[in-house]
Amino acid sequence: MADKNTLHDAFLDELRDMYHAEKQLTNALPKLARKAKSQDLADAFQSHLAETENHVTRLEQAFADLGETAKTRTCEGMKGIINEANEMMGESFDDQTMDAVLIASAQRAEHYEIAAYGTLVTWARTMDHDSVADLLQQNLDEEKAADEKLTDIAESGVNDQAAQIAH
Amino acid sequence: MADKNTLHDAFLDELRDMYHAEKQLTNALPKLARKAKSQDLADAFQSHLAETENHVTRLEQAFADLGETAKTRTCEGMKGIINEANEMMGESFDDQTMDAVLIASAQRAEHYEIAAYGTLVTWARTMDHDSVADLLQQNLDEEKAADEKLTDIAESGVNDQAAQIAH
Repeated sequence: MADKNTLHDAFLDELRDMYHAEKQLTNALPKLARKAKSQDLADAFQSHLAETENHVTRLEQAFADLGETAKTRTCEGMKGIINEANEMMGESFDDQTMDAVLIASAQRAEHYEIAAYGTLVTWARTMDHDSVADLLQQNLDEEKAADEKLTDIAESGVNDQAAQIAH
Repeated sequence: MADKNTLHDAFLDELRDMYHAEKQLTNALPKLARKAKSQDLADAFQSHLAETENHVTRLEQAFADLGETAKTRTCEGMKGIINEANEMMGESFDDQTMDAVLIASAQRAEHYEIAAYGTLVTWARTMDHDSVADLLQQNLDEEKAADEKLTDIAESGVNDQAAQIAH
């Protein structure tokens, strides 16, 4: 195996990690959508699923722009976050609480991706991989928007309804 | 076992999850500090370790305010993020790239916590647990500041130095 020691090598590692993260999310989001009781929340998960499929395609384009074959590297971070979400979905929470819990789980996934894409965009710009940086920036912007949309849904009533039942 | 179905129950689950996440971080941060080559970066990890020990104490206070015993619940998300960091630390990256990689790993951990504390603060306020919300808000603010400090260190030269070697 060739020596693996430069920022470019680390960049490829992280890109493969995100490729796996996004693929894991395309499996997880339909489950979140089915579990959601609020229609707004189910719709948000469905529309983020379509975006996530697009993220996978953009990552494949990024690999192509770099002259690399698209391949995954196990993303332990996203795996842990999804395991945790599955655990919480197995609990017997009332409907409103479960919706609040689904939002909480999804926001952990979004924030993980925001951190990872933030790093990838910065590294890509530093190494003058401009077309790749642009693709990654588009994914980053959509993750941030998805996170904000989830906050809006939580604030628009899901949390209050859950809290009323808690009292 | 009592029924576990309200937002208050979910809140306790998430609080125990963060208690475990912070404890895991108090073990991980000294390793990151030892691995860092940049003195600024090593200092940032050390000073965040002191903050993290404080976060553990604040969480214990939050449990006490709620009349609950402080206990952990396995935080799969943070476990995955730390496993990933350990994997990357085992690679043979040059010193500058390793520093960039350490920052990337730590920012994933910070963002995970930002998402989790964001949820916890909102839920605590919704349920009128004001003293608990204040404690969690202090932790949240420090996680955000730690994340920004890491971005500053990355931008102040770590990434550029790593990129020069990559060319």
